[in-house]
Amino acid sequence: MKVLVINCGSSSLKYQLIDMTNEESLAQGLVERIGIEGSILTQKVEGREKYIVKEPMNDHKVAISIVLNTLVNKESGVISSMDEINAVGHRVVHGGENYSKSVIIDETVMKELEECSKLAPLHNPPNIIGINACKELMPQTPMVVVFDTAFHQTMPQKAYMYALPYELYKENKIRKYGFHGTSHKYVSAVAAECMNKDLKDIKMITCHLGNGASIAAINEGVCVDTSMGFTPLAGIVMGTRCGDIDPAIVTYLIKEVGYSVEETNNILNKKSGVLGLSGVSSDFRDIENAVGEGSERAVLALDVFNYRVKQTIGSYAASINGLDCLVFTAGLGENSPETRQSICDGLQFLGVKIDKEKNNVRGKVTEISSADSKVKVFLIPTNEELMIARDTKELLNK
Amino acid sequence: MKVLVINCGSSSLKYQLIDMTNEESLAQGLVERIGIEGSILTQKVEGREKYIVKEPMNDHKVAISIVLNTLVNKESGVISSMDEINAVGHRVVHGGENYSKSVIIDETVMKELEECSKLAPLHNPPNIIGINACKELMPQTPMVVVFDTAFHQTMPQKAYMYALPYELYKENKIRKYGFHGTSHKYVSAVAAECMNKDLKDIKMITCHLGNGASIAAINEGVCVDTSMGFTPLAGIVMGTRCGDIDPAIVTYLIKEVGYSVEETNNILNKKSGVLGLSGVSSDFRDIENAVGEGSERAVLALDVFNYRVKQTIGSYAASINGLDCLVFTAGLGENSPETRQSICDGLQFLGVKIDKEKNNVRGKVTEISSADSKVKVFLIPTNEELMIARDTKELLNK
Repeated sequence: MKVLVINCGSSSLKYQLIDMTNEESLAQGLVERIGIEGSILTQKVEGREKYIVKEPMNDHKVAISIVLNTLVNKESGVISSMDEINAVGHRVVHGGENYSKSVIIDETVMKELEECSKLAPLHNPPNIIGINACKELMPQTPMVVVFDTAFHQTMPQKAYMYALPYELYKENKIRKYGFHGTSHKYVSAVAAECMNKDLKDIKMITCHLGNGASIAAINEGVCVDTSMGFTPLAGIVMGTRCGDIDPAIVTYLIKEVGYSVEETNNILNKKSGVLGLSGVSSDFRDIENAVGEGSERAVLALDVFNYRVKQTIGSYAASINGLDCLVFTAGLGENSPETRQSICDGLQFLGVKIDKEKNNVRGKVTEISSADSKVKVFLIPTNEELMIARDTKELLNK
Repeated sequence: MKVLVINCGSSSLKYQLIDMTNEESLAQGLVERIGIEGSILTQKVEGREKYIVKEPMNDHKVAISIVLNTLVNKESGVISSMDEINAVGHRVVHGGENYSKSVIIDETVMKELEECSKLAPLHNPPNIIGINACKELMPQTPMVVVFDTAFHQTMPQKAYMYALPYELYKENKIRKYGFHGTSHKYVSAVAAECMNKDLKDIKMITCHLGNGASIAAINEGVCVDTSMGFTPLAGIVMGTRCGDIDPAIVTYLIKEVGYSVEETNNILNKKSGVLGLSGVSSDFRDIENAVGEGSERAVLALDVFNYRVKQTIGSYAASINGLDCLVFTAGLGENSPETRQSICDGLQFLGVKIDKEKNNVRGKVTEISSADSKVKVFLIPTNEELMIARDTKELLNK
């Protein structure tokens, strides 16, 4: 079975074609500037040069038809006809409270996706546009949606409820949903494999540390808490997002400092995090360089980031009464030995002990804890596309 | 030395006269409805009936003169003249970044208190009014201010900085300050005494759980983190306050749900917490009764409260890499064995083990951990007034 994985943003589209007989990625690509002048598609295939298409792409349907053509044409293709694509797996950000698993797309699902757009106005609408475009171009191909929120739907009520008037939950659906679920699900499964144990028997904390960042607590095989909340702004410090702060600061910025609601939203989402603290960049590589050049604010930004991650790990150890396994993934988690080391320093009380030599690694599955560490610590590169393809295959094989 | 402790609210005033030769409370009282029709003073003296004064009190100066009269007159008095009051200790909520300790009042201090009013507009102004009234009535008596924020000023930068644009710290002083410092300081000192150790040698977490609630992490003798933030809204769930939530919820309430900034502030501060979740009350006794009557939302409110406290303890254990001593204080912490039990259930990974028998106690200093608990757990009734009097005595004896 070959599965095409699609992840649609408002003006971009990521795709990957995966052969599920051996989980091999046949091609992966990115379309940028959809509906904007200068539309461009870039496709990578193992062992070949990058293939680039520059053509006007006024909407997602045009973009997807060019993707499909790029996958099948003689010059750039990896399959001989569209019929070889047995299924499409779509990433959708928000599944609300109704989806705790991936699901085959039908009319009911489409209606509920529309309803969830209220909760994710920036993300669900382009996801839906992508699905509709694919349905028009490949009307016979079965399609599946995989939600970023689904893995976290197992959280108990005490974890997902905010201490707000109950009506705001009932009427406005304000609760913790959590995001990055596909990534947390994937790396937790790989970690269990590495430990040669059933996930059900492992108390695990997974740290997805990228430009967006979140942490999940997993117990008895399911997610019991996660750091992102009603939106992806919550939780730990991120590249440009502030994470949890005193909520009174938000109204203070509006009432006392004089920002509009939109400006405030923009500050908290786009101008905060390690960018706001360091004044340098939202990219941790730039900040590490600035540390080397003696920037005190860059040091502060990393200190604050690492400290809040460490605290959240402690908090989740309390949620699950202990810890057997700690996982680092995503850009920073996979590529910064310094970050992993700093976060783990001071977690000795949990039984975490890093092996400095083993930790000096980037981007491949590695056990980085020392032989006598009570807690197994892993670096596991995430692979959301593969997880989406796996869910798609599993659902269609049922 | 006899110290009069004064805690002024906008329309109320609490006082206590303490004989510091033996730390005995000679009299304590409460004035309510200052500047409002129906002003009333209630004074309690050990072994006597309550003494009540109902007289118009148009401002704090009148109220304090009536307090002084009540302390010295033949019928209700406990001292024979005002000269016996050797010093006054004033509670002030916000000392900003300049005060990490209590301080003798002079003109510079008064100016800085005024400046801190921007940060605590509901609290500092009545505190200042109280100080000025006392100075007019007792111009020769030395006075000291004890700040709610001072104990937390030892926090490292990684703990007190929010991941917001750095300018908001520099220009608008937006950072974590923490409150309840006098209470955390007092109970941590008593706990160290109980353990017969120097506070410097104890990794300690103190939980002040009242209608307002906060937790502090203490390492090497100083506070290194605390749960309240820029304002007392932050941190754990409280009687009517939401504590930490996804900050995007605040702008969502304004922009999508349609509340004004003032209404939103009011919801987060006055209608949330266990009141908002339970729909019953902000008083934990009412909620425990409602649990007995089968209210699911009352169960949920307690679950959420206990869970967030538990998580914060885990988080602070990560801040200080372990735990030797856990302290419960304030209304709920002192009087609810069930709350203490629920919070400690699941903290076995830290070495916390409660003795059910010992825990069945209210309102007196008790070690409630079992003999084989790695972590000593204490119930310690707080006494902010005594702490203020101690600081006052210490400063004036220098």
